[in-house]
Amino acid sequence: MKFAKAHGTGNDFVVLPDPDGALDLTPSLIAALCDRHRGIGGDGVLRVVRSAKHPDAAGVAADAEWFMDYHNADGSVAEMCGNGVRAYVCYLLASRLVAPDTTRLDVATRAGVVPVEIGPDAITVVLPRPVVAGEATVTVGGLAYASVAASVGNPHLVCPVADVAALAALDLGALLVDASMFPDGANVEFIAAGAPIAGADRHVHMRVRERGSGETLSCGSGACAVGAVVLREAGLEAGTVAVDVPGGRLFIALEADTCRLTGPAVVVATGDVDVARLPA
Amino acid sequence: MKFAKAHGTGNDFVVLPDPDGALDLTPSLIAALCDRHRGIGGDGVLRVVRSAKHPDAAGVAADAEWFMDYHNADGSVAEMCGNGVRAYVCYLLASRLVAPDTTRLDVATRAGVVPVEIGPDAITVVLPRPVVAGEATVTVGGLAYASVAASVGNPHLVCPVADVAALAALDLGALLVDASMFPDGANVEFIAAGAPIAGADRHVHMRVRERGSGETLSCGSGACAVGAVVLREAGLEAGTVAVDVPGGRLFIALEADTCRLTGPAVVVATGDVDVARLPA
Repeated sequence: MKFAKAHGTGNDFVVLPDPDGALDLTPSLIAALCDRHRGIGGDGVLRVVRSAKHPDAAGVAADAEWFMDYHNADGSVAEMCGNGVRAYVCYLLASRLVAPDTTRLDVATRAGVVPVEIGPDAITVVLPRPVVAGEATVTVGGLAYASVAASVGNPHLVCPVADVAALAALDLGALLVDASMFPDGANVEFIAAGAPIAGADRHVHMRVRERGSGETLSCGSGACAVGAVVLREAGLEAGTVAVDVPGGRLFIALEADTCRLTGPAVVVATGDVDVARLPA
Repeated sequence: MKFAKAHGTGNDFVVLPDPDGALDLTPSLIAALCDRHRGIGGDGVLRVVRSAKHPDAAGVAADAEWFMDYHNADGSVAEMCGNGVRAYVCYLLASRLVAPDTTRLDVATRAGVVPVEIGPDAITVVLPRPVVAGEATVTVGGLAYASVAASVGNPHLVCPVADVAALAALDLGALLVDASMFPDGANVEFIAAGAPIAGADRHVHMRVRERGSGETLSCGSGACAVGAVVLREAGLEAGTVAVDVPGGRLFIALEADTCRLTGPAVVVATGDVDVARLPA
């Protein structure tokens, strides 16, 4: 089975080229491919399939030629992944499934058709503007932190801390979210102000603990939530926030209805995986 | 750069075929290749190079055609890795660098020439017999466990626990080794008796915390230490111990001077890695 390994700011994926939808992708095969020691390893699988060839996207085949068939590392189906779309489009370009000089592209996902803009060094996904909601408390090692809730389809809590030293010192393994407000849990982003940088109205450093995954190198929707909360705290309706995650730098640009998630994406390797040698 | 991904009971490696020793392998390139999110991912790198083509092995080129040039995931050079030798030989066979019907092979390592035996479903590395030394105490979450020290070139502490339920319940993150006895730390193996199985005098389940790596799916030298301690406790000078690690089953066979480490090894994938796309 052909594969590629790609990532966007450290959020990494096993990419399976399957233009005609011929692969039989079972949850156990996906979990085996994502096994970091006995498989290829990844936060999820991106199957590259034409919309017309997949039942979940056939209805939008006229609007978006390619469907991002995304699966979590445990084999479950996921609707969307912002960094996943960026890595997906990077693969389409690298493998010449779309023309190398493409600058705009619509990608079908289970959450609808997502516009993508392609720059020389970065790929931008255009997402709906996050909805900033109320406040909540997050507890880390017995200490309570005030946080702002934001929805990006999935729930996020954004917690400012004093500075980058305090951010680095947090033990995110000892984190508790108020279960009465978030019975299904929430992704939690801790942020600290960074030095001003060109091209951004605000600059923050972020660490994230994702529901069900623990601390990760990057979280696209988390960066979007952070951008929305930071601009609101600054009294800005629109603007750009640079968000440094452990895996790199993302830019979040908010306008009236949209949130542009911009950052690098790379295809690191391509090859053949011997499915018979994967864990059962 | 050509690569393969191989593992032995979950101890996984980036394999770099370099028969003529032409690759310029820097510590930063090795660390980038082993990066599990932004590279290929592995516990280490196995460069496949002819002994005659590498300065560390040129002296034994007449005894062993192939040299296992092993590097830890952080880029440092390592002398030996039992599971690494098994994965290395699996790659030599899969890539036809040695004849597919080979049943015995000597592999050069920085710890000397290591004999390897190749069976239909398993690969055996013949190592020196571990030296069982004194006793020591290991503390987990405030509870003290009696352990037996054993040296397999590197230091190990083998701690029996009551049963497999107690083994599963251990929080190996909260483990402390007596720093006055082991100032450089030690690998710690916890074991619990398993049901009798054919072909083994004893059967144990093992979890391991490796120095500098945390809990891992497998540790070849740790299994050898466990085999030596279990047989000594049973009053046996020689014999076979089946050791179930989280990544699979290993067999340890002790004789007067040798310790045979036997288990499966597989090449999961082969491909090309784009070195320019790896993290700097």
